[in-house]
Amino acid sequence: MKRRQFVGGLAAAASLAACAREETNCGSDSAAGAQTFEWSCVTSWPPKFPGLGMAPENIASRVEAATNGRLKIKVYGGGELVPAFEVLDAVSRGTVEMGHDAAYYHKGKVPAAQFFAAIPFGMNNLEMYAWLYYGGGLELWQELYDPFNLVVFPAGSTGTQMGGWFNKEINSVDDLKGLKMRIPGLGGEVLRRAGGTPVTLPGSEIFTALQTGAIDATEWVGPYNDVSFGLHKAAQYYYYPGWHEPGPGLETIINKDAWNSLPPDLQEIVRTTCQAIVTDVIAEYMHGNAMSLKQLKSDPNVEIRPFPAEVIELLRGISKEIIDEMMATDPAAAKIGESYFSYLEDMSANTDISERAYYNTR
Amino acid sequence: MKRRQFVGGLAAAASLAACAREETNCGSDSAAGAQTFEWSCVTSWPPKFPGLGMAPENIASRVEAATNGRLKIKVYGGGELVPAFEVLDAVSRGTVEMGHDAAYYHKGKVPAAQFFAAIPFGMNNLEMYAWLYYGGGLELWQELYDPFNLVVFPAGSTGTQMGGWFNKEINSVDDLKGLKMRIPGLGGEVLRRAGGTPVTLPGSEIFTALQTGAIDATEWVGPYNDVSFGLHKAAQYYYYPGWHEPGPGLETIINKDAWNSLPPDLQEIVRTTCQAIVTDVIAEYMHGNAMSLKQLKSDPNVEIRPFPAEVIELLRGISKEIIDEMMATDPAAAKIGESYFSYLEDMSANTDISERAYYNTR
Repeated sequence: MKRRQFVGGLAAAASLAACAREETNCGSDSAAGAQTFEWSCVTSWPPKFPGLGMAPENIASRVEAATNGRLKIKVYGGGELVPAFEVLDAVSRGTVEMGHDAAYYHKGKVPAAQFFAAIPFGMNNLEMYAWLYYGGGLELWQELYDPFNLVVFPAGSTGTQMGGWFNKEINSVDDLKGLKMRIPGLGGEVLRRAGGTPVTLPGSEIFTALQTGAIDATEWVGPYNDVSFGLHKAAQYYYYPGWHEPGPGLETIINKDAWNSLPPDLQEIVRTTCQAIVTDVIAEYMHGNAMSLKQLKSDPNVEIRPFPAEVIELLRGISKEIIDEMMATDPAAAKIGESYFSYLEDMSANTDISERAYYNTR
Repeated sequence: MKRRQFVGGLAAAASLAACAREETNCGSDSAAGAQTFEWSCVTSWPPKFPGLGMAPENIASRVEAATNGRLKIKVYGGGELVPAFEVLDAVSRGTVEMGHDAAYYHKGKVPAAQFFAAIPFGMNNLEMYAWLYYGGGLELWQELYDPFNLVVFPAGSTGTQMGGWFNKEINSVDDLKGLKMRIPGLGGEVLRRAGGTPVTLPGSEIFTALQTGAIDATEWVGPYNDVSFGLHKAAQYYYYPGWHEPGPGLETIINKDAWNSLPPDLQEIVRTTCQAIVTDVIAEYMHGNAMSLKQLKSDPNVEIRPFPAEVIELLRGISKEIIDEMMATDPAAAKIGESYFSYLEDMSANTDISERAYYNTR
């Protein structure tokens, strides 16, 4: 189901010629006579959800403005056109031209994709973008998606998330035993080996599950998104930091045939807009988190706490085990993981004396 | 000296009409018949200097690709067309259409501009971009530059810098007394009140001054840029963190008449490209710093050290004094400073439990 359309012809060209003769401002008419494209973009997010859902909306509106309407992108929320977690399939098959989601949703098919979203105790957003744009990460990501007929661009990050909302205090590693917590992906597997019971629930069901006691705890994103779901009304303890998602990256994926049909200037506009959205999304999250945290701090029913050191120690050890196993069994994960962890070692030596030292000194 | 040119006419339009009739790929011909622009961009940087100087080069090449040549920007290094620190004047007057530099270079004319580059013990780059894009900072910046007939866009950050290279150990506040150090701007004024002698030198003269003992110490940027100047061969102690420049922001400034002459699609391309460059520059710096730091760590003649706590305490106190004085005497600084510090308070509560807590936990 391709939606590309060709618009133009003699009438438009004649009007452009008239415009050119009169030497009026023709720039805004540059689309006249040029090939135009109409794309669909499916996503994993509730429509226009703060941060996550606004990223593809902003990409679409800015691409339309920058191309003067030559590339129009219609954005669909998760489930509107295809199920929320089948974005990769739909774009890969060419059902739609474009998708916006997070790479760890593909872990069933491509375990190594998780390196491009979030690795427990791994890189935060600043470190990840250095690896992607300057450290060879993006080339590895593209190589991983080549068999799926996809072109990939980084397209936002939530920043370091929170550890989650708990209705049970976590004072020691024993408190993880039997803990029923909504936590998907690698983080969930870590919790399982620590004695807990990870649960996977779509965002829309979290509040009720937490309020009714069906789960003891949940992670979601951070103050900005958590408050919009009302999670602070369903649990008392808000733990930090988000050891399991230190700066998860979002992605724009584009069907290669659709991509190749774009002229180079439109390709450049899409590529550059996705990179601009990286700046925009982290700014939106940092701002939204700060404002929502201020609200939470004035709420007498909310207690904000760090995880105990022994809990972090245990989770760190298990995380390493699980990632080592993934790298031992999947050649793509081994190749990407080697690049990732070698880069993390060099990079954290740098962030230790710059960003980290500054936070601790200020 | 305007350089706008109008290119087009009947021949181009006729060729476009033929193209449209045949329904071949016309996208790459979209410039045919459209108005084209040739701009000059002056900068404060050595030509193509890593990070700082590559930012305007990358803006220019990406804008040219995205506009399919309708907007061409020629970039000049500092001093090539106008002196390195007269970028604002040249763009304001319309001598050139565009400039790339840092706002603290305008402090003689507009003291409050420093809030948009670097404030000692102030926001780092992530916090600053949240303030600029979502916290009202960019509107205040634009308002400050309106009288200069300028449009401003954020266009990169070096990230948290280093404290600098020293040939004298700094073990106590007494070691600052009589210290002759190259450190411009607010940081220099802080050093003066702490008993030192701040010196202003262009980048190109720093190495020789340090090697000959004309100065005892210098700050420049961070490992990436410092190693490219060879500063590690002229001093032994490398102190951190860069308390005086926690994440200095770069700017693109555009003459308002030139800006208003662009059609909306070209305006959107310039705006979006500058925002993409924000992501690109910090990624380049994080990567370059990590790689150069690795080199420095293997150098037996370099010792990397944190500033002693009592030195940081003193510098923090003096910084506050100086900024308070600036806000008391300059109404623009008072207005912008109130927004900045109120935002910093809310934001650091957030970064304390997210980015900072994660660095300290990992």
